[in-house]
Amino acid sequence: MMRAVLTVPPLWRSIQRASFCRTAMRLEGGVSMVQGSSRGIGLEFVRQLLEEKEKGQVVATCRDPNGATGLLELKKKHNERLDVLRLDVTDESTIQASANSIAERYGSLNLLINASGVLSLPDILQPETTLRKVEKSSLMFAYEVNAAGPILVIKHMWPLLKVGGSTGSERNFAVVANLSARVGSIGDNGLGGWHSYRASKTALNQLTKTISVEFARRKDPIVCILLHPGTVDTDLSKPFQRNVLESKLFTREFSVQKLLGIIESAKISDNGKFFAWDGQQIPW
Amino acid sequence: MMRAVLTVPPLWRSIQRASFCRTAMRLEGGVSMVQGSSRGIGLEFVRQLLEEKEKGQVVATCRDPNGATGLLELKKKHNERLDVLRLDVTDESTIQASANSIAERYGSLNLLINASGVLSLPDILQPETTLRKVEKSSLMFAYEVNAAGPILVIKHMWPLLKVGGSTGSERNFAVVANLSARVGSIGDNGLGGWHSYRASKTALNQLTKTISVEFARRKDPIVCILLHPGTVDTDLSKPFQRNVLESKLFTREFSVQKLLGIIESAKISDNGKFFAWDGQQIPW
Ligand SMILES: NC(=O)c1ccc[n+]([C@@H]2O[C@H](COP(=O)([O-])OP(=O)(O)OC[C@H]3O[C@@H](n4cnc5c(N)ncnc54)[C@H](OP(=O)(O)O)[C@@H]3O)[C@@H](O)[C@H]2O)c1
Ligand SMILES: NC(=O)c1ccc[n+]([C@@H]2O[C@H](COP(=O)([O-])OP(=O)(O)OC[C@H]3O[C@@H](n4cnc5c(N)ncnc54)[C@H](OP(=O)(O)O)[C@@H]3O)[C@@H](O)[C@H]2O)c1
Repeated sequence: MMRAVLTVPPLWRSIQRASFCRTAMRLEGGVSMVQGSSRGIGLEFVRQLLEEKEKGQVVATCRDPNGATGLLELKKKHNERLDVLRLDVTDESTIQASANSIAERYGSLNLLINASGVLSLPDILQPETTLRKVEKSSLMFAYEVNAAGPILVIKHMWPLLKVGGSTGSERNFAVVANLSARVGSIGDNGLGGWHSYRASKTALNQLTKTISVEFARRKDPIVCILLHPGTVDTDLSKPFQRNVLESKLFTREFSVQKLLGIIESAKISDNGKFFAWDGQQIPW
Repeated sequence: MMRAVLTVPPLWRSIQRASFCRTAMRLEGGVSMVQGSSRGIGLEFVRQLLEEKEKGQVVATCRDPNGATGLLELKKKHNERLDVLRLDVTDESTIQASANSIAERYGSLNLLINASGVLSLPDILQPETTLRKVEKSSLMFAYEVNAAGPILVIKHMWPLLKVGGSTGSERNFAVVANLSARVGSIGDNGLGGWHSYRASKTALNQLTKTISVEFARRKDPIVCILLHPGTVDTDLSKPFQRNVLESKLFTREFSVQKLLGIIESAKISDNGKFFAWDGQQIPW
């Protein structure tokens, strides 16, 4: 099932061995992790990495692997190349456990895509239409899932990305791609509303930028980018599609194809930048 | 003790009466609220409003009025013009209670300064020097105090600011000034670190911008601005002053004088903008 196994726990020892002794195997096509892949854009990333790209291992994480029917379908077809792990960004122990699991199985990561995110959830988070409706619980919930979550994932995957970046398959750095949103841009905020979601994505942008600065300073071979997928036809956008022109509502296939293009052509100088699906930079 | 009293609770009824019937008195010099005024910059705002400015009522809020020695001193000298109320931004009921109290006493607000903020707190929040030290609890705590806190204060003071803006003393709008920080700028982030604090201030910027858009759309007579006070000699900056040039470490007096200048000369077109102490705009 596995193409390369490093079996020396704990995490840090195995990682250090890999990077110091350069014993980590160059996995053909590398190892990609898609976090938040039960549905929507995340699931489509997994599909395209498996079916449109010729090579590579994919680690797909989600909150409920047994209920993730889309991933189970893909697992049937690509058993050798796909691992499905449980990861809930609000439960750091599941992030740590996933890192341990990937460390033992592969010892490295070449690509990490954080695709999880929440815009609305009945009784918990409603995209606010006015300040009057802003609730503390919603602000905190959106921040926990959309900002803190992906950052904690990067924290735990960092050692694996370092190894992947220096022993990687195609280029001499690993890539972290965080799914942000154009509404997280302060400079571009002309409409207002959606306070909790907007602020969480803006914070994600700042946290990603902050991390990219540290990676650059340490000369860690990791490039971090932020991506806006466009308005994409998924569960997340469903309640808000009425006011979207048909030509502006992208299929998951189209959006992910564009985003994978940006990821594949990423350069060191893209570290810490925020790109829309068409490659245009978005102002902070 | 009070120069004008509206005594009809509850809040909304008294506010509505004030704004519909235009019965709210024009308080000479207006009513200013300084939230987070037990120490540091907030306390100095209260002092200058009372002692450098000729007129106006000041509502100073803090977590522990009985322990706020600086405010108690000022209260002795300016009993008639100063009200001290208990407000903890992490406890929304104290925000609501302060709004009720101001509604009953004055019925309006012309200026709201959110000066509260936290950068470090033993065992709870350490300004992070590396991603490795980023803890979820710190991210959440900084966000609760620095981002959610001031926004909930604005939410509850909104009706009072609307009245103040239309019945105000010197100009035809009220001002909300939120104390942000240059390190909250993503565009200006060249050093990294301080993840929790940075992200909370960046989110505060986005939330303030979002609110400013709604106020403008509704034609509410309220201008919201974000302020960076410079590096100011307070408890907050104390642990980090070693690397600051003496000429770049401002006294509270100097910084607040500059910030009050910006507040006093604010124009409608400043709504939603982010200014440093010297009036220069800071990129998002
Ligand atoms: N669709 C758009 O138009 C659009 C626009 C701009 C940005 N985005 C961003 O793109 C990303 C993907 O969005 P989408 O449209 O694909 O949304 P989606 O279809 O609603 O999928 C959201 C994904 O996030 C996962 N998730 C939610 N909470 C999680 C948690 N606590 N831990 C781990 N995973 C969690 C969900 O898993 P479960 O199945 O377990 O709930 C699901 O897989 C998000 O970050 C979103 O903000 C989307
Ligand atoms: N000093 C600087 O160099 C600098 C630079 C950039 C930005 N700023 C910003 O300027 C503002 C003022 O900072 P400062 O230097 O004056 O800090 P400070 O001296 O540490 O004072 C912080 C104030 O915030 C209050 N506060 C903390 N948590 C609170 C809560 N939960 N509810 C209500 N009030 C709370 C404190 O009250 P307690 O006495 O009850 O703790 C205190 O009055 C902050 O927003 C800060 O981020 C400061």
